[in-house]
Amino acid sequence: MSTQSVAKDELQKEAPAVMKAAVMNEPFDIEIKELPVPKATGDEVLVKVMAVGVCGSDIHYYEHGKIGRYVVEKPIILGHECAGIVAEIGDSVTKFKVGDRVAIEPGITCGRCEYCKEGRYNLCPDVQFLATPPVDGAFVQYIKHREDFLFPIPDELTFEEAALNEPFSVGIHAAKRTKLQPGSTIAIMGMGPVGLTAIAAAKAFGASTIIVTDLEENRLEAAKRLGATHTINVLKSDPVEEIKKLTNGKGVDVAFETAGNPKALQSALASLKRGGKMAIVGLPPQSEIALNVPFIADNEVDIYGVFRYANTYPQGIQFLASKQSDLQSLITDRFSLEQTKEAMERARTNKQESLKVVVYPNGIVEE
Amino acid sequence: MSTQSVAKDELQKEAPAVMKAAVMNEPFDIEIKELPVPKATGDEVLVKVMAVGVCGSDIHYYEHGKIGRYVVEKPIILGHECAGIVAEIGDSVTKFKVGDRVAIEPGITCGRCEYCKEGRYNLCPDVQFLATPPVDGAFVQYIKHREDFLFPIPDELTFEEAALNEPFSVGIHAAKRTKLQPGSTIAIMGMGPVGLTAIAAAKAFGASTIIVTDLEENRLEAAKRLGATHTINVLKSDPVEEIKKLTNGKGVDVAFETAGNPKALQSALASLKRGGKMAIVGLPPQSEIALNVPFIADNEVDIYGVFRYANTYPQGIQFLASKQSDLQSLITDRFSLEQTKEAMERARTNKQESLKVVVYPNGIVEE
Amino acid sequence: MSTQSVAKDELQKEAPAVMKAAVMNEPFDIEIKELPVPKATGDEVLVKVMAVGVCGSDIHYYEHGKIGRYVVEKPIILGHECAGIVAEIGDSVTKFKVGDRVAIEPGITCGRCEYCKEGRYNLCPDVQFLATPPVDGAFVQYIKHREDFLFPIPDELTFEEAALNEPFSVGIHAAKRTKLQPGSTIAIMGMGPVGLTAIAAAKAFGASTIIVTDLEENRLEAAKRLGATHTINVLKSDPVEEIKKLTNGKGVDVAFETAGNPKALQSALASLKRGGKMAIVGLPPQSEIALNVPFIADNEVDIYGVFRYANTYPQGIQFLASKQSDLQSLITDRFSLEQTKEAMERARTNKQESLKVVVYPNGIVEE
Amino acid sequence: MSTQSVAKDELQKEAPAVMKAAVMNEPFDIEIKELPVPKATGDEVLVKVMAVGVCGSDIHYYEHGKIGRYVVEKPIILGHECAGIVAEIGDSVTKFKVGDRVAIEPGITCGRCEYCKEGRYNLCPDVQFLATPPVDGAFVQYIKHREDFLFPIPDELTFEEAALNEPFSVGIHAAKRTKLQPGSTIAIMGMGPVGLTAIAAAKAFGASTIIVTDLEENRLEAAKRLGATHTINVLKSDPVEEIKKLTNGKGVDVAFETAGNPKALQSALASLKRGGKMAIVGLPPQSEIALNVPFIADNEVDIYGVFRYANTYPQGIQFLASKQSDLQSLITDRFSLEQTKEAMERARTNKQESLKVVVYPNGIVEE
Repeated sequence: MSTQSVAKDELQKEAPAVMKAAVMNEPFDIEIKELPVPKATGDEVLVKVMAVGVCGSDIHYYEHGKIGRYVVEKPIILGHECAGIVAEIGDSVTKFKVGDRVAIEPGITCGRCEYCKEGRYNLCPDVQFLATPPVDGAFVQYIKHREDFLFPIPDELTFEEAALNEPFSVGIHAAKRTKLQPGSTIAIMGMGPVGLTAIAAAKAFGASTIIVTDLEENRLEAAKRLGATHTINVLKSDPVEEIKKLTNGKGVDVAFETAGNPKALQSALASLKRGGKMAIVGLPPQSEIALNVPFIADNEVDIYGVFRYANTYPQGIQFLASKQSDLQSLITDRFSLEQTKEAMERARTNKQESLKVVVYPNGIVEE
Repeated sequence: MSTQSVAKDELQKEAPAVMKAAVMNEPFDIEIKELPVPKATGDEVLVKVMAVGVCGSDIHYYEHGKIGRYVVEKPIILGHECAGIVAEIGDSVTKFKVGDRVAIEPGITCGRCEYCKEGRYNLCPDVQFLATPPVDGAFVQYIKHREDFLFPIPDELTFEEAALNEPFSVGIHAAKRTKLQPGSTIAIMGMGPVGLTAIAAAKAFGASTIIVTDLEENRLEAAKRLGATHTINVLKSDPVEEIKKLTNGKGVDVAFETAGNPKALQSALASLKRGGKMAIVGLPPQSEIALNVPFIADNEVDIYGVFRYANTYPQGIQFLASKQSDLQSLITDRFSLEQTKEAMERARTNKQESLKVVVYPNGIVEE
Repeated sequence: MSTQSVAKDELQKEAPAVMKAAVMNEPFDIEIKELPVPKATGDEVLVKVMAVGVCGSDIHYYEHGKIGRYVVEKPIILGHECAGIVAEIGDSVTKFKVGDRVAIEPGITCGRCEYCKEGRYNLCPDVQFLATPPVDGAFVQYIKHREDFLFPIPDELTFEEAALNEPFSVGIHAAKRTKLQPGSTIAIMGMGPVGLTAIAAAKAFGASTIIVTDLEENRLEAAKRLGATHTINVLKSDPVEEIKKLTNGKGVDVAFETAGNPKALQSALASLKRGGKMAIVGLPPQSEIALNVPFIADNEVDIYGVFRYANTYPQGIQFLASKQSDLQSLITDRFSLEQTKEAMERARTNKQESLKVVVYPNGIVEE
Repeated sequence: MSTQSVAKDELQKEAPAVMKAAVMNEPFDIEIKELPVPKATGDEVLVKVMAVGVCGSDIHYYEHGKIGRYVVEKPIILGHECAGIVAEIGDSVTKFKVGDRVAIEPGITCGRCEYCKEGRYNLCPDVQFLATPPVDGAFVQYIKHREDFLFPIPDELTFEEAALNEPFSVGIHAAKRTKLQPGSTIAIMGMGPVGLTAIAAAKAFGASTIIVTDLEENRLEAAKRLGATHTINVLKSDPVEEIKKLTNGKGVDVAFETAGNPKALQSALASLKRGGKMAIVGLPPQSEIALNVPFIADNEVDIYGVFRYANTYPQGIQFLASKQSDLQSLITDRFSLEQTKEAMERARTNKQESLKVVVYPNGIVEE
């Protein structure tokens, strides 16, 4: 590990005036710059960023400079799966004090539109989401954030685990959309970081049979460590056939597609029992995918699109703190802020072995 | 009209020993046979059948001899949208007496499997559904049926309206699956009988804007009579564009696909607002249809397969009896039982003008 | 009628600098004062108030100076059921322009707390609710309000009807909490304005049997005009007995208690069918009321407390504009702003004949 | 322990012609009789009963000869929390074979009424429930039961644990009615067997904070063993005060009242957060209990009556088999069938120390 250790008492010092930031000028070009530390005013909190996970979307912007209609038009700071320590608070902040350890929910919403008012704030058209252009993200030493999108984390939760609450929230949201029940059977297709954290979500919601599929053995191994009860290597067997065998021919109650892959999506659908429910989490590159529509109608299947998450942070933190899933074992690579480009390169090129890459903008705290 | 009028007092006589039945020996071959009148025992009720609507599935069996895995392997009686008068009751029948007017819910379920027990009896694998091979249907003068699948109809509801409760139930079920709310906007693609009756369902559930699409002007006219607030002829304009205009760019809350047509399905999906819900009712012939999966995920859309209906008969009867929708206006053709083949031919060949064809196995009651 | 008519073209003039306001200095003491017209800044809209209904809570503050923990500690302006015309808009207002006709949803919420984020903003602890101390209400000529709590009303809806959207929203909210379905049977106990408008809500949600109870014949007459299918005078018959007769001994699917009366509450509960649902809308003065708890458990009844409403304004406006219920017929008394004290006195003392009293701060528009 | 051990191979023998049964002739009078072993025909299964838990309702019939409208009018066999081994199967049984180990869901329902069809079969008016007069219960050596109300249990689940699936189901049902979510806080009032097993249900549904209350220290100790995170002795502290402290003043998300005690019910209600939900499980003797109705309305609380359970057996068995809760530790007393009266006496008189008393009609299987 090439990160710098930081003693705990250093954390109590006042926030400095300048900080380091990993800025992406254009695809593949990340430069460490010195930027002014933001000033927290009003209901804002300045957080000293301690851990930032690298996400598939970060990699996508790094490689392509855009995702769909979101285009990087000027230099941007990536990274949005983050946690840290409160360094300063604005005048009207009531929930936090300096030194509090927090997880950051990255999307600040308007609170005014019909989606926000109906509780579906993840669909807010005016969301300011970290690392989604043009909003800067968390590969910085200090970030300011509205207090209502910060959540306290208990001491037994490390910063890197707390950062994982972000991808974990996607799994929680999918579990809520599909009304995953204790005792259910579930299939999760695609053991990238989203699928792997979704196993923990399935466990949190009490699923008793968690069948996962992927191409890579090492990912299936990671899946087992996280709580998958059965793994299927799709290069060796037909996932739908295997799932039918494992469920006495019935099919699973719920399926999550987390691969963003058409074949995985078709398998997920076909693996459902009659009346089952599927969550589409992964975004495939193609805008059109052939689906077995008669199957959907004949079997009265529910299909739920999943876009980020809403109202998941507290329960996610609860579950992570309970240590019922070893999500920390997902972290395979650790880098300092200066090594952000290296971190991005590792994440995008080493998919066989790297599961979750984490950047530590302020070194590791000895915990 | 070539049906025979029947005076009301004739209805009170005892059931005869033999009756006429329209039996399909094989595709296109319907023969009027004399069969013994069934005996109602135990919890069975013998119903004198007064009206039977012709459904798309009846036509499909008539033309192809099968739908999917359901194959006509021996002569079968078609027709399942029916209503009539109680003629005899078995010993343990408690809810009905001779002379009662009833609507028949055509699928008898087991009451024992997990689907029946969870309230989703429409998914019962052992359902005995009228006119689904090998179960005989309602193109007969008398049919026996378990009492718990019969529902009393008030005097103000005619037998032919009560027979329409069957396709109407599909719309009610779709409205329940999509949680259609009063004040909602809805788009219904495909103004065949299912789509047309779905307009009434949308009205029953309080939708305030009901936009419908089809190719045929006469069907769009029928739609207006039933309560559609806006009609779109897809040969003349782009339905998605029109729907966006009609909803201030937002899209509809709910969409029903009732055409069984891939293009209609894709339009239904694209017409949804963010967070909208779609019901797939129509069964397309293709087993694979290209759908915009990124749209489903990005917009957190829900898609609900719809397979028949459950627990809809009483509320359907209520709404029909309130006369808030003129479903009776859907009936364009009337035939006697002896003319069943002619009825099938009219239904299958005259789709431009015929909306709902009805057979009257015992003539028309002067009501 | 003693209000002053105002020609339509006068409405387009700029907002004046001062306006009249009916200020309650202390219980029973309402004084017409001249106050500066507020300035709309940012996301605020200045509304010329055209109609304000008098609510039971206004009367309660007028009589007692407090409701529970809400205490009138300084002079306050009452009235919160209101609608009007946009007179001025702040710089960041995007949804409205001068001249737009709007209904005002009276409670401005924080959009930041867990309740707001979960879609239950009616439970926001920091709500600023018109006419709930210390927030001033709408017995004024001009009021400023955040734009996201204003809703456009169509031309066919009068201002006084739009003002009724506020009590109507309580009924809508109760209907949503109890999942009132088309074809349901419902009993509503207590035909004060909340109960009367709840009949319209029951109609909007498709209830087919709407049984109402009260002591006063004139209120029961008003109930019939609004769509009640059956009325019961509790001084003449036992409501539970009557309701059981009207439902073939089964009981109703849903009951609303809108009287704030212990006996009515006990009757509402006892009138439910097995598995039924009850909404408690009316606030009784007593803090403890005897309820039949074994009945609740044995019959698996759901009881839903109702506190104001959330996400109801648009669908309420839709339904009112459809004129399916004649809510306008509820308005029995009309007063000018100068007569606000008289209006309060009429509302509080003339309960037998007055159903809804409305104040017109800017006279009646000739519509 | 005074039960008789039975070697495993004995279980394979054919069912005998006569068996022992513990028959209650009248309150307090239980007689061991020899009765013919029932013959399983059609869809019935003959089960060799291996374990039967004693329930509060059994004790109530034993003491009073009735519960509400259920009156013991002739000798009856009590006991309904049971599990055993398939000894014989009727001709149309398809799911089981001789030797299968099963849990018995005690209420056989009609499958025909509106409640059964809506999935709420626990409300079936024609339910035949073991040990509810006039239906005989399970204090017998062999019982026949319809196959769809039997559920296979895995080898790792003992018969006595499987018998506990019955009271456990009540907790599962309450968790489903209150929509208990992972990460929730819950308070359970009353640590009788129903409250104790409800702790396991709360765990199964992922509650992170499980606060329980009772008068007896030994019951609070048992609660901790089962997974309660906090215990409150109501003789020593005010439960509502303590719960508020434990939840930072907010109150719990969900509360279960499992004591059947008015004070506990009032505390359960008062301990809820705003928008919280309460399940009333315990049946108090009084038919009227004072409840804080303004609190229910002001805080938009949901109250759910709970009557038995529906569709809980499979998920209950899953959770018990996972050994995540040590429900077996609840069993404090074991008796043979001959000692049934002694078992009833122990259960009814020794409430301080006895938690769950179990009768073994065929001895203990060496497992």
